[in-house]
Amino acid sequence: MLTRRNYSVKEMLGWTRRYIYIFVILSLIPVILYSVFKWYWLHLPWLPIGLVGTALAFIISFKNNASYGRLWEARKIWGGIVNASRSFAIMVNDFITNEHAKDHYSEDELFKIKKQLIMRHVTWMTSLRHALRTPKPWELSSKNKSDKEYMEGIQINERKFTLAAELDGYVTEDDKQFILSKNNKQTACINLQSKQLRKLKESGHIWEFSFLEMEQMMVEFFTLQGKAERIKNFPYPRQFATLNRFFIWIFVALLPFGMMHEFDKIGNIVLELVETWKPYPEGGFHHVIEFIGNHFVWFTIPFSIVISWIFHTMERIGE
Amino acid sequence: MLTRRNYSVKEMLGWTRRYIYIFVILSLIPVILYSVFKWYWLHLPWLPIGLVGTALAFIISFKNNASYGRLWEARKIWGGIVNASRSFAIMVNDFITNEHAKDHYSEDELFKIKKQLIMRHVTWMTSLRHALRTPKPWELSSKNKSDKEYMEGIQINERKFTLAAELDGYVTEDDKQFILSKNNKQTACINLQSKQLRKLKESGHIWEFSFLEMEQMMVEFFTLQGKAERIKNFPYPRQFATLNRFFIWIFVALLPFGMMHEFDKIGNIVLELVETWKPYPEGGFHHVIEFIGNHFVWFTIPFSIVISWIFHTMERIGE
Amino acid sequence: MLTRRNYSVKEMLGWTRRYIYIFVILSLIPVILYSVFKWYWLHLPWLPIGLVGTALAFIISFKNNASYGRLWEARKIWGGIVNASRSFAIMVNDFITNEHAKDHYSEDELFKIKKQLIMRHVTWMTSLRHALRTPKPWELSSKNKSDKEYMEGIQINERKFTLAAELDGYVTEDDKQFILSKNNKQTACINLQSKQLRKLKESGHIWEFSFLEMEQMMVEFFTLQGKAERIKNFPYPRQFATLNRFFIWIFVALLPFGMMHEFDKIGNIVLELVETWKPYPEGGFHHVIEFIGNHFVWFTIPFSIVISWIFHTMERIGE
Amino acid sequence: MLTRRNYSVKEMLGWTRRYIYIFVILSLIPVILYSVFKWYWLHLPWLPIGLVGTALAFIISFKNNASYGRLWEARKIWGGIVNASRSFAIMVNDFITNEHAKDHYSEDELFKIKKQLIMRHVTWMTSLRHALRTPKPWELSSKNKSDKEYMEGIQINERKFTLAAELDGYVTEDDKQFILSKNNKQTACINLQSKQLRKLKESGHIWEFSFLEMEQMMVEFFTLQGKAERIKNFPYPRQFATLNRFFIWIFVALLPFGMMHEFDKIGNIVLELVETWKPYPEGGFHHVIEFIGNHFVWFTIPFSIVISWIFHTMERIGE
Amino acid sequence: MLTRRNYSVKEMLGWTRRYIYIFVILSLIPVILYSVFKWYWLHLPWLPIGLVGTALAFIISFKNNASYGRLWEARKIWGGIVNASRSFAIMVNDFITNEHAKDHYSEDELFKIKKQLIMRHVTWMTSLRHALRTPKPWELSSKNKSDKEYMEGIQINERKFTLAAELDGYVTEDDKQFILSKNNKQTACINLQSKQLRKLKESGHIWEFSFLEMEQMMVEFFTLQGKAERIKNFPYPRQFATLNRFFIWIFVALLPFGMMHEFDKIGNIVLELVETWKPYPEGGFHHVIEFIGNHFVWFTIPFSIVISWIFHTMERIGE
Repeated sequence: MLTRRNYSVKEMLGWTRRYIYIFVILSLIPVILYSVFKWYWLHLPWLPIGLVGTALAFIISFKNNASYGRLWEARKIWGGIVNASRSFAIMVNDFITNEHAKDHYSEDELFKIKKQLIMRHVTWMTSLRHALRTPKPWELSSKNKSDKEYMEGIQINERKFTLAAELDGYVTEDDKQFILSKNNKQTACINLQSKQLRKLKESGHIWEFSFLEMEQMMVEFFTLQGKAERIKNFPYPRQFATLNRFFIWIFVALLPFGMMHEFDKIGNIVLELVETWKPYPEGGFHHVIEFIGNHFVWFTIPFSIVISWIFHTMERIGE
Repeated sequence: MLTRRNYSVKEMLGWTRRYIYIFVILSLIPVILYSVFKWYWLHLPWLPIGLVGTALAFIISFKNNASYGRLWEARKIWGGIVNASRSFAIMVNDFITNEHAKDHYSEDELFKIKKQLIMRHVTWMTSLRHALRTPKPWELSSKNKSDKEYMEGIQINERKFTLAAELDGYVTEDDKQFILSKNNKQTACINLQSKQLRKLKESGHIWEFSFLEMEQMMVEFFTLQGKAERIKNFPYPRQFATLNRFFIWIFVALLPFGMMHEFDKIGNIVLELVETWKPYPEGGFHHVIEFIGNHFVWFTIPFSIVISWIFHTMERIGE
Repeated sequence: MLTRRNYSVKEMLGWTRRYIYIFVILSLIPVILYSVFKWYWLHLPWLPIGLVGTALAFIISFKNNASYGRLWEARKIWGGIVNASRSFAIMVNDFITNEHAKDHYSEDELFKIKKQLIMRHVTWMTSLRHALRTPKPWELSSKNKSDKEYMEGIQINERKFTLAAELDGYVTEDDKQFILSKNNKQTACINLQSKQLRKLKESGHIWEFSFLEMEQMMVEFFTLQGKAERIKNFPYPRQFATLNRFFIWIFVALLPFGMMHEFDKIGNIVLELVETWKPYPEGGFHHVIEFIGNHFVWFTIPFSIVISWIFHTMERIGE
Repeated sequence: MLTRRNYSVKEMLGWTRRYIYIFVILSLIPVILYSVFKWYWLHLPWLPIGLVGTALAFIISFKNNASYGRLWEARKIWGGIVNASRSFAIMVNDFITNEHAKDHYSEDELFKIKKQLIMRHVTWMTSLRHALRTPKPWELSSKNKSDKEYMEGIQINERKFTLAAELDGYVTEDDKQFILSKNNKQTACINLQSKQLRKLKESGHIWEFSFLEMEQMMVEFFTLQGKAERIKNFPYPRQFATLNRFFIWIFVALLPFGMMHEFDKIGNIVLELVETWKPYPEGGFHHVIEFIGNHFVWFTIPFSIVISWIFHTMERIGE
Repeated sequence: MLTRRNYSVKEMLGWTRRYIYIFVILSLIPVILYSVFKWYWLHLPWLPIGLVGTALAFIISFKNNASYGRLWEARKIWGGIVNASRSFAIMVNDFITNEHAKDHYSEDELFKIKKQLIMRHVTWMTSLRHALRTPKPWELSSKNKSDKEYMEGIQINERKFTLAAELDGYVTEDDKQFILSKNNKQTACINLQSKQLRKLKESGHIWEFSFLEMEQMMVEFFTLQGKAERIKNFPYPRQFATLNRFFIWIFVALLPFGMMHEFDKIGNIVLELVETWKPYPEGGFHHVIEFIGNHFVWFTIPFSIVISWIFHTMERIGE
């Protein structure tokens, strides 16, 4: 899920390099069998293959659409966290006052409390970030060679620093131990926030109704966190994804069989044309065309690679 | 609705095994009639069949899209229950206090009450889980042989333990009897929760406005429960599903009739080519190609199976 | 909108019987003209017809998708009413107390009030159910013969009992007269509920803030009722529906013209094949094939019916 | 956006009459050139035209889907206004009381105030209705001849009466002057409502918390009004609409060129058939078929019109 | 994203002028090679190209749909800001009163405060507007020549005046310095608003519960601002966009190769026809048709340009 840059043609070809090798092999083998070994019966009718291609184009379009939907939703969640954090900040600033308090705090004390809440909020975001970077079995990019290579160029903070290291200085040692001891560290952060808010309410530094609003904000954070975890833990259903991949490879494998004969026919037409010209150019140029006509079936290879590449890349891009 | 694992090709073939047998039979019969009994008139024009195939590809894509939408919604509901439960937990923790209470409870007493609420919440989730596992008439996977076989490998807790057994230790005996006596056990749980919250409010251990918030949470649980029940009780409309299946089988049955002649033509072309080569390879190799040419129509079978399999699996996967 | 059962092939054929007769006629006429009267010029190129078919497949898919969306939304509204009713029930149970009341009511009096509110809520649901069953001009199923026949087998309570009869015993006679005198009976019910809630608030049996929550619930009921009425009163836009139907019939009518010639060609090929075999089977069997070849164009009829049926049923199912 | 009636075939043909004339001309010209002037080179390969047709079918389907989405949303907004108005009505009825008031009003005075609020609400709806009827530059139906003709049959109240005339009797003269003096008259209405609610709150006739609820309702009205204005002011993006139209006309213009040759070929086949029959029917009937064969290319015209009409109407209907 | 005007055909051609030149070159080169240099082997089978075209039509339709979705969402956000601003205005008007105040302010003082809040709200909108106009790397319209030319005709206020200049007179000098010193100027505005609201609450000029409502409005503004920033910062995923563009160019480049031979065949048919007529028109007219027949392949160019233009414009329009 890379969304920040424009891709150049070169990059795309580089990224899909390994697949292009496979397409070359998949189209080379039948052409060699056909052309060199003269297995002229290696031939499938094009129309059913075309139908499979059309069906695949649909399925992939729908899949990419769903994939885009997920990306967009992920972006929304992230945006939601930003918005909610800003709102939380003004609440911390303007809801924590001495107005209803039993013991008046000094400005400094209030500032320290506010800072503590904001810092712990940052801790929540850090924990969430780390949780979302844990590799999952279905994330192919950590296994797949082409992606691995690509990923190496990108620095991921979450894999360089441990959570414990990043928390230093943001929360007290006690809080840190508590958070790290829990399984779901993000939830622990919010629980701590809620506890402190409750104490502030009890001491009167947060008005009881403001407290309810701020608890609502905690609920909102849980919701956003839950949504982010859901996106992370629920990939595009595996059975769809596996089948799409499988269908694509069937299609790619059938493709040259459907086209070789077409190209061969074109070659024959060229040869016939050349023969009817006979009188015309007597030079070596004539032999070149004859040669092309005889080996026209080899053009199946680049053409088949281009189409395979389009379909395969279309499928891969939405992963 | 299996979402946790990658499928291997072998698994997929295993899962669809029974259907593949049918495809074999459906394509074998016309080919035998055509090739052995020489019913050369068994032939349908390909283009209308192709049109039906295109139309099917659409319908199935839309269906799978709707199916994915349902899956995603189900996941959202489940995520919603997780989020709401976490929010409920911080409310139980921080809203139940002695602050406004008439009789102060000891920390232990408060803890016991909190635990009771949380435990009853777990009971609600357990009841809901059991309710969602009840088999429904339109759920084919419990009748269909291929799915049954597959399902046997998966252990479902809800079918091993009864609800009554699972509730032990979570709620008091009274509550348990009350819950089990009701038809909709989940609703009974929430009703009990609401009753206890009301008592806590009346004794002042929940501030009246916090009580309103917590009742809102009950409303939220009802909403989530209702959504889960809805997903369960409202499958993809049966009339669409039945027709799609029916269309697929019509398509699969017509497929070999549209392709046999095409393959036969290819065979004839191969034979012609062989004849024009005559002088060329005199060895046994020549007879092989002649043999292939004469029986080329038999290639209809694997090709037709592959296409049938693609369309059928596409349709089945979204069920 | 039938969602409860699986359809068998027989049922589907039964349901679409009348249309199948029309398809038979529509394909029989051109074939007779072609084959018996030898109007061999009755022939249209297939490809443009195929294009129309592809376009139709799209439009119908989108329509069915929208149709499914409406069905799903209807189900959501119904689910919403269930959820809101359950929430209303716990509110009635736990918000109506003597806590803030000026005059304490006995448990019995409270129970009577609670029952009255719940009963009136049932009345609201009954009125809504009746309102949603009123036939509308665009609902074809009450006019269309095939559907009528089908519908006769289904008992609809709302058409057996009048609303007045169903209300008996649920509300007081006064309320009943008031409700029945209004145009929009559902709205009248909610107005009555709100009036009683207000009285309970004024006498202190509902705390003022709980009253606000319960009024919010009334707003929710209005919303759900409005949504249900909207789904009822706003069918899939008529102009789309009419055109789709019209396009389908154009397509069905053109279909045999595009296929007759194709089938005739196949017949000729069969005849040629038979002639080249001459020496081979001398028996009566030979004549059978010759007969089939000569009348192959008649196969247009079943094939055209199957395709017409697929497209037409696809269109009808989403209605 | 007509949603109330069923269209008959006649109406549809009447409505699209003018376009049908254009289709006749667009297909007549090439056929005359081809058939009469013998410009046999007026011929384009069908397959690329078919591809354009398929692409158009997609684009139009998506557009119609979006169009249906807008229609549905418009209906939702309208339904939302109905629901909110009903809710506002019960609030006016049950929130305005003497309970917290400093000066008790008589029942009559309260009724007068309530009526004033409801009447002003009606004024808001009237103003909104008028605002939504103002013609916009991109609304083709006021310029396009076919639509104009059609529209004449429909009476639009908003174009018969001015807003000033319709407001008489609903609001006081002062309010009326204030509303009419503003640009956005709907907003002015709500501002007036809010002012009166505030006064009622200050005099204690609305409890302060009920006032907050009612202000929330004003916010809701602003939201609904804003949504209605948005749907009105933001048509389907013009660049999409213009291009779709343009693509359709390109397609319609290319259509006969792609089909003429096909029909001519069919004609030739018919002629050949007639010749091989020679001995057979010697009557005048023979000449009829020969005549049809020779002029078969003229069948391009109706066929091309039908397809043009389908594609064009499909595009227009979603406008 | 231009939504305000109708496009004329001329404008569209003008806008896509530069691309049309490329299409001319891309189709001219192969035709010259084929026709002048007699490279008759420059020929690809049409059907696979058609399949690519169909697949592209899907992908582009989906992309345009997503693009329309974004446009619509952007419009919704803008509408949301309008609605929220109106609601904020009535709140400022009717929530800021002397009712609960410790020190009564004069009407003038209250008006000044209200004006200050409204003015600062305008400042927020101005800052947001400026933020949304900052050019981003993936916004092609600032780099692409065709778009640049087009854009020159449109005056963008945000690029003529700096934010500092526009703020003059709306906020106090202190506020202005504070806002301009921040990175995210919009957020700074809301923070200032919240601070003043808090002061007004503390001095009692806003009732504490009204204050909570107004803070909710601040949260709403943050949400809308965040949504607008999200739409701005998250374009249609770059990998999809780049690939679509790339696929289109592959398709456009392959197009003439697939069609040249078809047109050449048509030319040959024309020539044959002319020969069979021989006796018929002996004038110069005959030579014209012969000439057309011989050079029919050149018609590939306009036809290929039209199809390229349709596909390319379809893709560009959704950008």
